[in-house]
Amino acid sequence: GASSLLMISWFSFGSSKDKDSYMAEPVSGYRAFKDIENKPMRLRMEKLCMDVQHSLCQELQKLEPNAKFCVDRWERSQGGGGVSCVLQRGDTFEKGGVNVSVVHGKLPPPAVKQMRSRGKDLPQDKELPFYALGVSCVIHPVNPFVPTVHFNYRYFEVDVGNGETLSWFGGGSDLTPYYLDEDDARHFHSTLKAACDSSDPALYPKFKKWCDDYFYVDHRGERRGVGGIFFDDLDSPNKEKTFQFVRACAEAVIPSYLPLVYKNKDKPYTEENARWQRLRRGRYVEFNLVYDRGTKFGLSTPSARIESILMSLPLVAQWEYMHSPQANSPEDTLLRVLKEPKEWI
Amino acid sequence: GASSLLMISWFSFGSSKDKDSYMAEPVSGYRAFKDIENKPMRLRMEKLCMDVQHSLCQELQKLEPNAKFCVDRWERSQGGGGVSCVLQRGDTFEKGGVNVSVVHGKLPPPAVKQMRSRGKDLPQDKELPFYALGVSCVIHPVNPFVPTVHFNYRYFEVDVGNGETLSWFGGGSDLTPYYLDEDDARHFHSTLKAACDSSDPALYPKFKKWCDDYFYVDHRGERRGVGGIFFDDLDSPNKEKTFQFVRACAEAVIPSYLPLVYKNKDKPYTEENARWQRLRRGRYVEFNLVYDRGTKFGLSTPSARIESILMSLPLVAQWEYMHSPQANSPEDTLLRVLKEPKEWI
Repeated sequence: GASSLLMISWFSFGSSKDKDSYMAEPVSGYRAFKDIENKPMRLRMEKLCMDVQHSLCQELQKLEPNAKFCVDRWERSQGGGGVSCVLQRGDTFEKGGVNVSVVHGKLPPPAVKQMRSRGKDLPQDKELPFYALGVSCVIHPVNPFVPTVHFNYRYFEVDVGNGETLSWFGGGSDLTPYYLDEDDARHFHSTLKAACDSSDPALYPKFKKWCDDYFYVDHRGERRGVGGIFFDDLDSPNKEKTFQFVRACAEAVIPSYLPLVYKNKDKPYTEENARWQRLRRGRYVEFNLVYDRGTKFGLSTPSARIESILMSLPLVAQWEYMHSPQANSPEDTLLRVLKEPKEWI
Repeated sequence: GASSLLMISWFSFGSSKDKDSYMAEPVSGYRAFKDIENKPMRLRMEKLCMDVQHSLCQELQKLEPNAKFCVDRWERSQGGGGVSCVLQRGDTFEKGGVNVSVVHGKLPPPAVKQMRSRGKDLPQDKELPFYALGVSCVIHPVNPFVPTVHFNYRYFEVDVGNGETLSWFGGGSDLTPYYLDEDDARHFHSTLKAACDSSDPALYPKFKKWCDDYFYVDHRGERRGVGGIFFDDLDSPNKEKTFQFVRACAEAVIPSYLPLVYKNKDKPYTEENARWQRLRRGRYVEFNLVYDRGTKFGLSTPSARIESILMSLPLVAQWEYMHSPQANSPEDTLLRVLKEPKEWI
């Protein structure tokens, strides 16, 4: 009867407060987050990812009276799953996606090879159990004066046998404007720098440069945008301190980006501005499909969830043969800073 | 004075008849094509490429009273160059490009490695002089009921030392409809089959299957279109007969495709049809940037001409999260044949 259904609902969803705190039930279940401070790092990181997804989607939804996030909770046959939240054709955001994925299984040999090439001490001839989770997001706004933002924060564990586990964090946030507003670039970088500095003042300069290098589109001789921070294989000084650093970066997403949306979203723009935005979104597609490590890894992973991997692509992109902006136009000003990255702070 | 200028013009351009026969001066010069039957294969193939470019551009131009081909003759600092012809925003063609490139130099080690993996007997530790030329083309029409066509015919020579040269041909033509018209697919395939059969009836079935395999988009589990023919490393029964085969295929381009344009270009269509066309053009971008061997080779070649390599990308492409056509709709009918290729003849 009604009371036993209530029990099932109570057991599977936990308290109604938990239920409202996330976009969907976490892959590991609501109950896995109880007493979280005493849980293993992978659950603490999963909770952080779900918290970031929820708070960001709530902030974005405030700007969208007419469009709603489509929330998909999906499972992966080889282990794990995810929660994808995507909003399309909003008043402020043309397309925005925030994806949490929590997958585990056996590491495929090409991944082992790639990690060994980055200096990981992994045995070569064994199937290695792994655990990978993270939150990733790309937001493409409608107004060409609002930049696109991307971030990703992730945690990786590999069981190397004999009871030993290797683990590390990776991630970053970066900004892709269509028109350069130096104040916006400075605000974005300053917010990230403050998050980095709370752990170690040496981090921001190092990760800012890493970001400029990572988002280099070799065949165009330009960067994707004005950068931000990027890091990988981070495990020092210790797991706890690295997690605190990653948390600070993840919590900097909203204050680094949302003010730029509010500032620019209602600026008037022309069809020429929108065309330039579509052309630059074509370059975004080029980076993601040709170079991005996460996208390439995803596309080559058997039974990966393609829709979640490619939700980073813009709603519309354009390619014109031999398009080149006029010298000293606002479009040209952007290109110059993409060819020659600047120090913003 | 005037008479010496006239002489210079006469020497560099040959007769005015030659000048009107190509979109621009061939990379090897007009005079290189004189007495062509007695010239080396690379010049005969270059003339074929220039002829195909010229006759196709003339046919396409007939349908475009308001747009003109932009013709760029370009040079490559390491040797060779090309002629790119691109038409954008026409009445019939949204974007179409026909590119001839004729390049030579030293083969980079990754290319040697890739060719060895395909069974070429190339020495590994030497810098090998090479000569590569071809014509390639992608045409994206305005009307969603007109398919996109792509073709590429190419010739490769490598000097392996001791006076020995390896040479081979490659190429193919394939059709990418947005809506399936079985008569169109049959016409396209029949025309190609006839071209193949003129050399050897065993070729069409083999190259039809190779095409279905090559244009497979692994991460989507579907082919790019309804196929055509594809081949590579072709050098038997001998160079002359292989050239005759390639010429027959290249000369089949116009009769295989132009009738489909005339038949469908004025069909009425809705915004929904155009949206589906943009979504499928997104898949075209995915294939070209993630899988296409020629595009990947081009993007990783130092000082390649990026605008010519990426002229294959459509003017506009679209990506929608979780888009899926209704069961048994015309869009769904196309998807089914992309997932399960058919014999058209």
